[in-house]
This record gives sequence, C-alpha cells and structure tokens, in this order.
Amino acid sequence: MKTIVICSGGLDSVTLAHRVAAQHDLVGLLSFDYGQRHKKELDSAAFCAVQLGVPHQIIDIQNVGKSLSGSALTDDVDVPDGHYEEETMRVTVVPNRNAIMLAIAFGIATANGADAVAAAVHGGDHFIYPDCRPDFIDAFQNMQDRALDGYASIQLLTPYVLGSKADIVTDGAKFNVPFAQTWSCYKGGTNHCGRCGTCVERREAFHLAGVADPTVYVDPDFWHLKVRETKS
Amino acid sequence: MKTIVICSGGLDSVTLAHRVAAQHDLVGLLSFDYGQRHKKELDSAAFCAVQLGVPHQIIDIQNVGKSLSGSALTDDVDVPDGHYEEETMRVTVVPNRNAIMLAIAFGIATANGADAVAAAVHGGDHFIYPDCRPDFIDAFQNMQDRALDGYASIQLLTPYVLGSKADIVTDGAKFNVPFAQTWSCYKGGTNHCGRCGTCVERREAFHLAGVADPTVYVDPDFWHLKVRETKS
Repeated sequence: MKTIVICSGGLDSVTLAHRVAAQHDLVGLLSFDYGQRHKKELDSAAFCAVQLGVPHQIIDIQNVGKSLSGSALTDDVDVPDGHYEEETMRVTVVPNRNAIMLAIAFGIATANGADAVAAAVHGGDHFIYPDCRPDFIDAFQNMQDRALDGYASIQLLTPYVLGSKADIVTDGAKFNVPFAQTWSCYKGGTNHCGRCGTCVERREAFHLAGVADPTVYVDPDFWHLKVRETKS
Repeated sequence: MKTIVICSGGLDSVTLAHRVAAQHDLVGLLSFDYGQRHKKELDSAAFCAVQLGVPHQIIDIQNVGKSLSGSALTDDVDVPDGHYEEETMRVTVVPNRNAIMLAIAFGIATANGADAVAAAVHGGDHFIYPDCRPDFIDAFQNMQDRALDGYASIQLLTPYVLGSKADIVTDGAKFNVPFAQTWSCYKGGTNHCGRCGTCVERREAFHLAGVADPTVYVDPDFWHLKVRETKS
C-alpha cells in the first residue's frame, strides 16, 4: 500500500513514518509550514526522510496560517507552560488545522497515485482537539470517499488514534526510532524547554513507557512537578 | 447569519454573493489563488466585493496548487474545447480542490466568528466533479461538525447544489447581478473565448434561462454548434 505520511518532525509522526516504512510502502513524507514557531520540527522531518530514503515535500501554507488568527502557534501570544489541560492549551489550537492539512494531503496523494495517507493523531489529544477524535477521522474518511469518487480510493491510516503518547514511545522503541532527532517543543529554542505542554507530555510519555528519554531539556525537572500537581 | 462566500469571480459565485447579501449578513468574500490560468476571475471577485461593500480576502495557495499536478487548470496542458462532457473535462479537475478550499474557508470562518460558509456548487457539475454532489456536501458538513465540536458551529450553504447553471442565471437576474463583470473562461484571454467548456456552459445557461447574455465572446457562435452536436 503506497502511503504518504504527514510528518511534522515530532515524536509521534516520526515514529509513524518508521512504522509505515516497516509495514507498508512508504512513498514520501509531507510537512506543512504554516508559520509555526517551532520550525525545528521541519528539520527533524527532513532528517527522518533522509534516514528512511524517501522524498520530503514541505507545503508552504503560511498564507493560510496568517488568515487563521487567534492561535498562540502563529501569533504573538505567549505559549502557556504546563500540562495539556483544556484551559491552558485551547490557545494553541489553529482552527481546523487537521481538516486543512488532511484535505491537502489527500489531494497530493491523488495526484501521486498513492493508496493511503497516514497521520499521527493519538488518544492523548482527544480531549483538547476535536479534530483528533475517532469520530472526526471516520467522518473525514467518509467525506474523502465521496469527494474522490471515481478518481481515487485513498485510505486514512491513524494507527495511534486510540492509543496514548506512551504507546507511541513504546512503538517507536520497537522500530528503533532515533528519538533524539525528533522535535516537540512549541517554543522552538535550541533545546527542548521542558516546560511547555508538549515538552511535559513528551517527558511523561517516556516515563510511562519505561523508555529512556534521550532529549536535552532546558528545565528537565519541571514536568515531574507539573504532573504531580495535575494528578493530586 | 454572518456568512462568508467563497467567490471565484465567476457567474455562479458572484450570483451567490448577491443572493447572500440580500438574504443573510454577508461578512466577506474569500477567493483562492491556486495558480489558475484564469486570474481575471479574481479581479471580478474584487469588483463584486467593492460593489457589495464587504472585505475581499485572497488566499494564496499556489504552493498547494503546484503540488497537485496533472490538471489543465494549473499545468501546461491544453484546455479542451467543447461542452462539459466527462471525457474532455476530466482534465480540468484539480484533485480534491473543493475539500481543500472548503476546509480553509471553515478555518477562516472559525477565526472570524462567522456562522456560515456559502459555496456555489451546482447540479450541472455533479456528473464531472464528485466534490460538487449533494452527498459530498452532506459528508463535508458532518466532518466539520466533528472537527469544530466545542469551538464553532458553522453551516455550509449551497443553495444551488440541486439547481442548474440556468437556475443560477435566473436567480442572478432577480438580484440584478452585473453579469458582464463576472468571468468564466478557463483560457484567461481579454474576452471570453466562447469555445472552452465553461464558456459553452455559460452561453447555454443564459439561453436556457431566457436572459440576455451581456458577455463578449471571441467566438460567439461555437456554443450553439457544440450544444446541437451534444444533443443530437
């Protein structure tokens, strides 16, 4: 099954790319530049493509990103510290981002004769992002089946949609993913900050999976304090 | 109902903009520059926005357009002459175009607090374009309801989805649409060519609606010959 992986360069999508390369016919990685702060992600995606020996296409949708104002990912709003709790993380939502990226990916898959598009949405995102939930994924597939009727039949693969980020780390360890070469931090510094929502979630996922975390964090202990706070 | 109209500057979407301005609260026109040859459309959309006194936003998705190769709309392939028959017009299909544009429009509607997105898909396109059919429209609405759950509730308005292009001309006459200031021709010359699929369809729609066609065509008689050929 010729499969295109949407790869941001983060832990989840790089692991997905390695999984697809092992299980299917990986034909390329697709990244989106929507004016996000954490462009280091894109370097990580490029590294992943080289390692897996497939083309890497970056689609510049900054003009779209600029139109989707009101998100801390693209605007001059402070990125909140802490765990992915609804109140603080709502600000990181780019409206309709997954629907937009998936629709473009399906267009590219059609143009390239691919059979599938794979995306690394996972269970840990459900609460905050409605466009990471299983019912969205099903509805998106149904929409695309109708949109491309007679032209193409493309499957949306989301193997982690019911799993957690810790499950992804476990899977990545199985496929020997070079975790240190993946990028998660929303702040886009030299090293991972260790304090923003995705750094805390990343650190915690390695802990829960019982896998050594090779990431260099500016503040390596913040996550533990934060997770204890959240859980108590 | 605060409504954004996706307006290419063609006859259909300009008529839709006038209809929405009369029946709802039109908040703006949205056009897409995907590297199409017929950019004169975009001037017509700008004219429409000025006339209706609303903002006009052009989203540059040329980078996306370039990735969606294989279409005569964006590539160096000759645009076929003649009626919108499946064989000749398949070549004008940009894969997944409507899903991509609608997804972006829904993101922009969310960011701007709009209640609805209106699109001028119509019955005459069903045969060729699966993403103009009523079942696609329903599936798209369902997908968006799930994608934006908890953030926004945005309706997709497609008043012409069951109508013909002649019905649109009839509707436009009712709303005093300045038809001469709309652009349909895929070839993008100084005047409408009169020979390409959309010119033939435009000319025929005025004829069927019994409305005078103010358009200047380079070849004003080609459509009639072509329609007779198709019908015989």
